Amino acid sequence: MLHWLRHYRRDWLAGDIGAGVVVAMMMIPQGLAYALVAGLPPVTGLYASIVPAICYALIGTSMTQSVGPMAIVSLMTASALAPLAAQGSGLYGVLAGQLAFMVGTVLLLCGLLRVGFLANFFSRPVMSGFTTGATILIAWGQLPALFGAALPGLHWPSAMLGVGALVLLVVLRSGMAPALVRMGVLPSRAAVAAKLAPMFVLLGGMLLVELAGLRELGVATAGDVPGGLPGLNLATSHSHWGALLQPALLIAFIVFLVSMSGAQVLAQKRQEKLDSNRELLALGAANVGSALSGGFPVTGSLSRSAVNFAAGAATPLASTLSAVLIAAALVAPTGWLSLLPLPVLAATIIVAVVQLMEFDTLRTAWRYDRSDALALLATLAGVLAAGIQEGVVIGVVLSMGTLIWRASRPHIAVLGRIAGTEHFRNIERYPAETVPGLLIMRIDANLFFGNVEAVSARMEEEIASRPGTRDLVLVMSAVNSIDTTALLGLAEWNETLDRRGIRLHLAEVKGPVMDRLKTSDVGSRLTGNIYLSTAMASDELARG
Amino acid sequence: MLHWLRHYRRDWLAGDIGAGVVVAMMMIPQGLAYALVAGLPPVTGLYASIVPAICYALIGTSMTQSVGPMAIVSLMTASALAPLAAQGSGLYGVLAGQLAFMVGTVLLLCGLLRVGFLANFFSRPVMSGFTTGATILIAWGQLPALFGAALPGLHWPSAMLGVGALVLLVVLRSGMAPALVRMGVLPSRAAVAAKLAPMFVLLGGMLLVELAGLRELGVATAGDVPGGLPGLNLATSHSHWGALLQPALLIAFIVFLVSMSGAQVLAQKRQEKLDSNRELLALGAANVGSALSGGFPVTGSLSRSAVNFAAGAATPLASTLSAVLIAAALVAPTGWLSLLPLPVLAATIIVAVVQLMEFDTLRTAWRYDRSDALALLATLAGVLAAGIQEGVVIGVVLSMGTLIWRASRPHIAVLGRIAGTEHFRNIERYPAETVPGLLIMRIDANLFFGNVEAVSARMEEEIASRPGTRDLVLVMSAVNSIDTTALLGLAEWNETLDRRGIRLHLAEVKGPVMDRLKTSDVGSRLTGNIYLSTAMASDELARG
Repeated sequence: MLHWLRHYRRDWLAGDIGAGVVVAMMMIPQGLAYALVAGLPPVTGLYASIVPAICYALIGTSMTQSVGPMAIVSLMTASALAPLAAQGSGLYGVLAGQLAFMVGTVLLLCGLLRVGFLANFFSRPVMSGFTTGATILIAWGQLPALFGAALPGLHWPSAMLGVGALVLLVVLRSGMAPALVRMGVLPSRAAVAAKLAPMFVLLGGMLLVELAGLRELGVATAGDVPGGLPGLNLATSHSHWGALLQPALLIAFIVFLVSMSGAQVLAQKRQEKLDSNRELLALGAANVGSALSGGFPVTGSLSRSAVNFAAGAATPLASTLSAVLIAAALVAPTGWLSLLPLPVLAATIIVAVVQLMEFDTLRTAWRYDRSDALALLATLAGVLAAGIQEGVVIGVVLSMGTLIWRASRPHIAVLGRIAGTEHFRNIERYPAETVPGLLIMRIDANLFFGNVEAVSARMEEEIASRPGTRDLVLVMSAVNSIDTTALLGLAEWNETLDRRGIRLHLAEVKGPVMDRLKTSDVGSRLTGNIYLSTAMASDELARG
Repeated sequence: MLHWLRHYRRDWLAGDIGAGVVVAMMMIPQGLAYALVAGLPPVTGLYASIVPAICYALIGTSMTQSVGPMAIVSLMTASALAPLAAQGSGLYGVLAGQLAFMVGTVLLLCGLLRVGFLANFFSRPVMSGFTTGATILIAWGQLPALFGAALPGLHWPSAMLGVGALVLLVVLRSGMAPALVRMGVLPSRAAVAAKLAPMFVLLGGMLLVELAGLRELGVATAGDVPGGLPGLNLATSHSHWGALLQPALLIAFIVFLVSMSGAQVLAQKRQEKLDSNRELLALGAANVGSALSGGFPVTGSLSRSAVNFAAGAATPLASTLSAVLIAAALVAPTGWLSLLPLPVLAATIIVAVVQLMEFDTLRTAWRYDRSDALALLATLAGVLAAGIQEGVVIGVVLSMGTLIWRASRPHIAVLGRIAGTEHFRNIERYPAETVPGLLIMRIDANLFFGNVEAVSARMEEEIASRPGTRDLVLVMSAVNSIDTTALLGLAEWNETLDRRGIRLHLAEVKGPVMDRLKTSDVGSRLTGNIYLSTAMASDELARG
């Protein structure tokens, strides 16, 4: 822990300070905005940017990860709380913190159980479909705030302000960096500066509200924002633990996936090694920290972390500094935050999430592997049609379905001898010779519950097409493990074949697999033998 | 369809008739009993034994499968309906049919989508844990009926009758077959006759109720059983479709797993080939048929099918005959069914389900693969602690977790040349020579989303331990497929390594994999080359 602090090098300091300032300026509008997405008062988004970031800095293994509010996780929070409490009620706020506490506890438990490998649960196309679906839901959900009225209504002053901010943000996004470069700014710095556009647009919006008296025209603003730091305590509603459990599990899963996929992108660039179990603990602590300090579920955000990285962050000192700066903003007078025009905030949300949409993955998958592309589209459709939480379940089912499907089609080859050699090859691809009565099959996969039936079916098929088979040799050169289901399957094949007068042999069993087989009695009950090589099996069995 | 009928051979007839009669005699008490487990009037269990069995006979691919009520599926039905309606109410019966209809529809859809491979979703230890947990829940649930009062109460006449029947059934189970053999009966027939013990014990119980006037002493009986066949119609409650969806999905899953695992055991013995997609359609039709004829969710039962097989069934004519016989029993006077003593029925349920418990699998797994044994115990504990439906989810999560865990640890070998040969082997196991600056790694698994990160991590590790690496060759001889996630991963490795001045090469790429790679631009963007053999790669790259 804090390895980076003990080995801190002075030349990192400038980068960390610069990145800390930049990320704080990016995090304030994001925090305010994603609190709104979660259905909470804007200030809670700032609370959720302080303690969680510090918790992550203490435990996490990524040097540049920025932990705090994130659009998709905020949407999931709103979706989890919607059936339980009304937005704006005291209960809603309590449940948001309770949910963060449960998400954190789940992540901490997963970290202690060392199940970090679960980050591999989603395929990239499924994750892409989920993200794209979520961003569409979020953008759609912001339209009433952007137009200042429930759709299809329109509040003209709000709509003009919101759409104006939207257009400005889009123009700045593509035009600001090149313009700065033309003005002599270094390209890398120009790119970072362009990320601060939302901050400037929001400040401009606030000025406009004040100077043009937009509040009097009915433009909604953030209203009174309480100043000061959040207190450290956790209120819970005892009757809601059960109802929050399933959402907490789903949110914890997405928090981990989103954070890990972002952190891995940056870790590759920095040649860093992430420890997924430590990441679980760090994200767990961050969420418990958020719960204790008036926040809601948080995660690592790739968009923010990428800015942190690009702005020169070398260690978590950068994100710690961001947290301190945000805390300072809360201690300073916060009256100005009440000017925050909600249509402009909606515009920043829409522009931010639209960048999360990934159509490249769909294009690649469509050309390369149609089934992956269909899984992407199905997840996307699932999120839009059934909702964000159901979308996670659909994504898991599709990923796992793909996995089981692939696993249930192991590669199996019938082998024959290359004449005059000791080599045995797939008879479908090589001119290899077989011996009547002797069937040699090589299984090119680890044997486990997902493919036992497939191997069984292929075995039956090959035996049926070769009447008179007396000996079956399974070549195990590619089998690195056999699970209990496959062990029981092996014992059953042995029995079934025995009833038909066919002996079952094994060949080229790897050392570790052989050692494990010896702990069961399957090896000793085999009707046939275990051969060191396929050639030895063939020589002995062909002699009869 | 009906292939067996078009090719029916006369010498099958005796076996089919005998098995049909035996299975009907077994099915009547089971139907009555499992209807009680489902919380429904006993007669519905007979309804659920007629149309479903005929539907399965028309479509299914197993010759000996017996489809009808089954203990675990009945328990799941009761658990699904408990929060929605009171047992004994009209709504409860309506929802049971509606649930069967939804289960059937789900199965039919799965059959049309050809997702029969999903039968591989559960590992055997997880299935064993689930079954054992369910049987404990069922047996426990029957104790009040056995003792004639809510626990810890006791109604002495009921308890004596129930416990007496229980003891008698246990004695008959182990003693009846040997006794019959000693009396000169063929062992195979004696075994089948012993399966009819529950029928005789129930008949004895009914006699006792009538002769000893047990009803007057307060022993509960089945009460009036309406005679006649069920009408063909389906009542539904429109407000309950949503609430029944999740249970219907879980029950459909278990219906398929239970039926397939039983059918596979018998198919292996008969050298039959099952078609899992046709099985889905057949089970779907059976459940829709059950819904239309006053029944509840049904599935294939291994215990009944095994008796069907042992009694000589050669084709589905046997189970069709059973269905006809049960229908005949309903058309005949049914007044006698009202005598059915519930404590005796409870005793038959307890004895039947206790036979489903599997401790062999636990013993084997404990010795052979501790993690499989722990998955079994966790599923068992999950069913007992959280309930039967949650148990299915826990089982799926554990099976999939195991799968992802295994997948996330692919076997990867660093290769070196066996001096003076063209052979390249794992340097950890053979005295093989490596060339400085050149790293050759063989990936012994298909590349997909579950192991991309693991391969990535191993690559980083090996490169880090060999400073000065300029060329990395991935030997793809064991890679039969690359999914979209892995394709994107490959492109990223290529870029990342390029930034560090390391070229990425591929060797021994299989034909189908190469063809697929060509549909993307990853191959052409590779910084290195694609070699036919590892030796060619090594020769060229070692020269520099």
